[in-house]
Amino acid sequence: MPASGLTEISTIACILFIFLVPLAGAGFALINAGLGRSRSAAHIMMSSLSALSVAALVYFACGFAWEGYIGRPGHIFALSGKGWNWIAAEPFFFRRLAFDGSPASLAAMLQIFCVGLAALIPLGSGADRWRLRASCLSTALLAGWTYPLFAHWVWGGGWLAQLGANYGLGHGFLDVGGAGTIHVVGGLTALAVTWILGPRRGKYSADGMAPAIPGHNAVLVAFGCVLALMGWLGLNCAGAILFTGGEPSGSVLIAMNTVLAAAAAALTAALITKIRYGKPDASLCANGWVGGLVAISATCAFVVPAEAVVIGSIAGGVVMFSVEWFELRLEVDDPGGAISVHAVGGIWGLLALGLFARFHRPVSNIGLNIAGGAATGSEAGQWLAQLIGVATLLGFVLPLTYAANWVLNRLYPYRVSVEGERQGMDLHELGAGAYPEFVTHTEDFIPR
Amino acid sequence: MPASGLTEISTIACILFIFLVPLAGAGFALINAGLGRSRSAAHIMMSSLSALSVAALVYFACGFAWEGYIGRPGHIFALSGKGWNWIAAEPFFFRRLAFDGSPASLAAMLQIFCVGLAALIPLGSGADRWRLRASCLSTALLAGWTYPLFAHWVWGGGWLAQLGANYGLGHGFLDVGGAGTIHVVGGLTALAVTWILGPRRGKYSADGMAPAIPGHNAVLVAFGCVLALMGWLGLNCAGAILFTGGEPSGSVLIAMNTVLAAAAAALTAALITKIRYGKPDASLCANGWVGGLVAISATCAFVVPAEAVVIGSIAGGVVMFSVEWFELRLEVDDPGGAISVHAVGGIWGLLALGLFARFHRPVSNIGLNIAGGAATGSEAGQWLAQLIGVATLLGFVLPLTYAANWVLNRLYPYRVSVEGERQGMDLHELGAGAYPEFVTHTEDFIPR
Amino acid sequence: MPASGLTEISTIACILFIFLVPLAGAGFALINAGLGRSRSAAHIMMSSLSALSVAALVYFACGFAWEGYIGRPGHIFALSGKGWNWIAAEPFFFRRLAFDGSPASLAAMLQIFCVGLAALIPLGSGADRWRLRASCLSTALLAGWTYPLFAHWVWGGGWLAQLGANYGLGHGFLDVGGAGTIHVVGGLTALAVTWILGPRRGKYSADGMAPAIPGHNAVLVAFGCVLALMGWLGLNCAGAILFTGGEPSGSVLIAMNTVLAAAAAALTAALITKIRYGKPDASLCANGWVGGLVAISATCAFVVPAEAVVIGSIAGGVVMFSVEWFELRLEVDDPGGAISVHAVGGIWGLLALGLFARFHRPVSNIGLNIAGGAATGSEAGQWLAQLIGVATLLGFVLPLTYAANWVLNRLYPYRVSVEGERQGMDLHELGAGAYPEFVTHTEDFIPR
Repeated sequence: MPASGLTEISTIACILFIFLVPLAGAGFALINAGLGRSRSAAHIMMSSLSALSVAALVYFACGFAWEGYIGRPGHIFALSGKGWNWIAAEPFFFRRLAFDGSPASLAAMLQIFCVGLAALIPLGSGADRWRLRASCLSTALLAGWTYPLFAHWVWGGGWLAQLGANYGLGHGFLDVGGAGTIHVVGGLTALAVTWILGPRRGKYSADGMAPAIPGHNAVLVAFGCVLALMGWLGLNCAGAILFTGGEPSGSVLIAMNTVLAAAAAALTAALITKIRYGKPDASLCANGWVGGLVAISATCAFVVPAEAVVIGSIAGGVVMFSVEWFELRLEVDDPGGAISVHAVGGIWGLLALGLFARFHRPVSNIGLNIAGGAATGSEAGQWLAQLIGVATLLGFVLPLTYAANWVLNRLYPYRVSVEGERQGMDLHELGAGAYPEFVTHTEDFIPR
Repeated sequence: MPASGLTEISTIACILFIFLVPLAGAGFALINAGLGRSRSAAHIMMSSLSALSVAALVYFACGFAWEGYIGRPGHIFALSGKGWNWIAAEPFFFRRLAFDGSPASLAAMLQIFCVGLAALIPLGSGADRWRLRASCLSTALLAGWTYPLFAHWVWGGGWLAQLGANYGLGHGFLDVGGAGTIHVVGGLTALAVTWILGPRRGKYSADGMAPAIPGHNAVLVAFGCVLALMGWLGLNCAGAILFTGGEPSGSVLIAMNTVLAAAAAALTAALITKIRYGKPDASLCANGWVGGLVAISATCAFVVPAEAVVIGSIAGGVVMFSVEWFELRLEVDDPGGAISVHAVGGIWGLLALGLFARFHRPVSNIGLNIAGGAATGSEAGQWLAQLIGVATLLGFVLPLTYAANWVLNRLYPYRVSVEGERQGMDLHELGAGAYPEFVTHTEDFIPR
Repeated sequence: MPASGLTEISTIACILFIFLVPLAGAGFALINAGLGRSRSAAHIMMSSLSALSVAALVYFACGFAWEGYIGRPGHIFALSGKGWNWIAAEPFFFRRLAFDGSPASLAAMLQIFCVGLAALIPLGSGADRWRLRASCLSTALLAGWTYPLFAHWVWGGGWLAQLGANYGLGHGFLDVGGAGTIHVVGGLTALAVTWILGPRRGKYSADGMAPAIPGHNAVLVAFGCVLALMGWLGLNCAGAILFTGGEPSGSVLIAMNTVLAAAAAALTAALITKIRYGKPDASLCANGWVGGLVAISATCAFVVPAEAVVIGSIAGGVVMFSVEWFELRLEVDDPGGAISVHAVGGIWGLLALGLFARFHRPVSNIGLNIAGGAATGSEAGQWLAQLIGVATLLGFVLPLTYAANWVLNRLYPYRVSVEGERQGMDLHELGAGAYPEFVTHTEDFIPR
């Protein structure tokens, strides 16, 4: 019997949507591996499996205890006569969670995968130089503290979700499929890790040139994009049911918006790279595609398809300029473009919800039934709630993840030794390459 | 609330079936890439992402407006006292489509992926020489005109579907999972494109020899076959619900038939290549597998498993001989075998429906409830309806797609320059190879 | 209308779970290919497609006839006043099976894929030396006799399932997702095949050294692990509904346990290889991950997540030591580690059910409703039933599969010729390599 709140059909639909989410993880892993060097390919895949594993176990151990779910116990903080829920009060190890198809158990299941997705994002940025155990430690931190804390505020009935009920700011901060909770949190962690690691050897030469170091396998990258799309279909649809009270039949709109945003973003990226560099760039188009997915996941349930196309197109453009800006201006060496795709794309998506989402017109039959959210919020207030959420990400989550990773880096240095980087992560850390039978020319690198 | 016509359970099942369909697209992209050259691998993957994107956006913009759905407005043409529905009358941009889980919105969602599948088919045939932007233009044409027009006739209540009601030809032209609408349309477009492009440099020498140019990655090809199977399970089951009024529980029969047909076709192909060439050919077996999937998708809901084995076996044989015939007799250079697999395999499937489908015996509980189709049609009439559909494909769709692509080729030449072909599509059109760190010997090609 | 016994929602959920199962097959194929040599990569993928095809067709032809389903006709054997059901009595070719969503038709659909999974297992062990047609013959044997026989005893209401009703041993032998029926049967067949084939040339030198022959593509291996996880989610959930009478909403617990067991096993493997060899081993971690999946599949519906972590951790350790023991002590050359992962991991899972499963506490709302099983069995009896099942596997199935494969090997030699092995399976058996354009150094093998 499903728990109250979800019909049996919604429960089953939600379970099946959740089961598609690991495809997004598989896609991320392939994209990261494909955009990195061949001599680190086994390492990044091994890091991905490890990150998924560590994230799942740590989230099980303590992450869910901090995140909780709407309507379940939390620590309330009274301020100016209003109660603000700032952290959940669940026991560790899912001990009070009934695995009976209750919405809370479904949310826990979904989060086990979502936190893994967030943990995969920094791996793309730290490619070719981040030590395996360091990335596991950083993942533990993300899955055990940073992610659940922010996700509680958004999806667990926390203070960001309460902005609607407490101050009349629309429905409170909204994020259907995790543009903020998964992607901006993961992307800002990637930024922190990249700052701590520094650029790859040879990326920025003394004369200020930054030669592109091409990814080693473009086929994996493009293939990963299609897998990511499929995972996103599941993720956005499950998020809409669990976190915004949507009906499963609203999934048609969500899926349509998701596909169109990715398509528009990829083509925008192709157009921009064609104009700027003379030829469309396959890697950047892949980044655009994923950026479109990231952006639409905030707002997929609340816009019509034409708006999804607009949001996706802008996401594609924003990601392109962000990639260039981080690489050339800020000298942040991010092989997978993860910061631009996930952090910048996600922030755009969160803001786009404030700009485009309309709850009073009948775009679909997705009911909006957010615990702690006002039944009828103003649209200007919604925009302000989104701004507050983005400010929290930049002003609180980024310093938090930077400080925590800085401390970890002191305790256990993140960056591989110079000798190890020269040798390649595969041989240095795993003792075996990804492609031992293929002849490669990785050291004297000749772009072909 | 689901719209009238489908129960809530059917709606949810259909959504989830549709979400599996992109796996077929991922599979096609990998098969096309694997059967092409390594120096075009990034290009074909990039072309695939672009084709999926263009197809989705164009179908959204105008494709659905021409295709529509059974029971929705269309332009009717009166002939000999009967009304023939020849094109839908929907507004552009899904403007009158309620995304509430109604069958029409589900059909639109499914088609967004199906039209992408159809657009991937010609990419395999044009591999190694078709320019990226030309393939995008051709995709726009397919998704905006050719595909929706024919699909309206079959799936949108158009004149081919009306053959039953208007002339008593069985249930009218039937195609459960798109053997005709997706595969023959895509495969005939592939034929048109291949005629326009001409063979790859070095394929047909002056002395009439046609050396096989092997695909560069057999692992991707076989892996793509398994992914394609999974996408097909979703596609056939969703098509049965949306276009033939099937019950979701009938999906068991459909899935069983789909698997058995693919298996029989692959083994038949292995046997034939073993007999003819001395050794089984992995690429041709993969072609056989997909050919079996294509053939069964017409008729999967209306045959018993033993018949599916027969249909698949014949499909495997037909595809083998067709590949040889096109390559050696017609000198059509089709690296991915897409014409044989999709056009020839699909035509066989459409005819097989006329031969094997039996609507009056209880093969399953799939109800047949086709709008515009007679409740009880004759079986001989069904066979005639299938013949008329195939004749329409060959006599109308093929000239249409050839003429349209011929015009596009005049406006924007399809084929890459001789220098570009020598250099490889990746470097020439994208400025970067798919595998920049691997040592390859692509020019002085030595089969290993 | 779904058949009695399952609600319509359960039927649909089950169909969709089953549709995920081929991802496990795709994952196995990639893992096997990645752990083998590059010069056999096309061969192993072709063998995988062939094995899936042969398994499906043979299971359709006669396998289901022997396996049947709970509550359907079987041959009963009277012993000491009790009826023992030892084989099903179905007609060949699914002739009496109604494809109406009845539980029996769902079980047949699931088994079509499961028997394919079992058939893929020996391919990893016989990599680089097992002839294609021999593996097809062996698959036919597995799918047509060994697998259905044992699966009937467990899942078809056979004598192992009857141990509860007949002798009060708990609920009889239990295996939710096929740890025994799929993995131990497949793994023991792999052991038999490996014994018959002997080690690869150069694996065991005269001085007793066994140099590791690394797999040729670590990316495929890790990617395959994520795909395998997804297939397992579907497999375990479908198995729970069809073979232990579970509710679909219990899938949340099953999925959580599945993920946590895989994660715990992979990390345990990383830790053990780090301690023993100085560096974590990517291939062995992948083996650990799959070993965790295999182990939990026996008991996933009957334990809490913390127990799943324990079962997974032990599985990871057991698989590590088993791999070393088989490779160095028993000199069994198993390139994919399939014997350890599937046979040893599966046996541990079956025993773990006896140790951990508790049916009387409310871990979930999964009802236990096994035909032929006692409504309330003792927990000590359950442990004994599991022991009897494992003893049957080792004492009956292993000799059976060894003897049958030994006879087949006499009729059609399994091992490729010395010349063929030197040349590589791809060129020798298929006439074309998997990667004809890449420069490889396979003969003078230099680990990089």
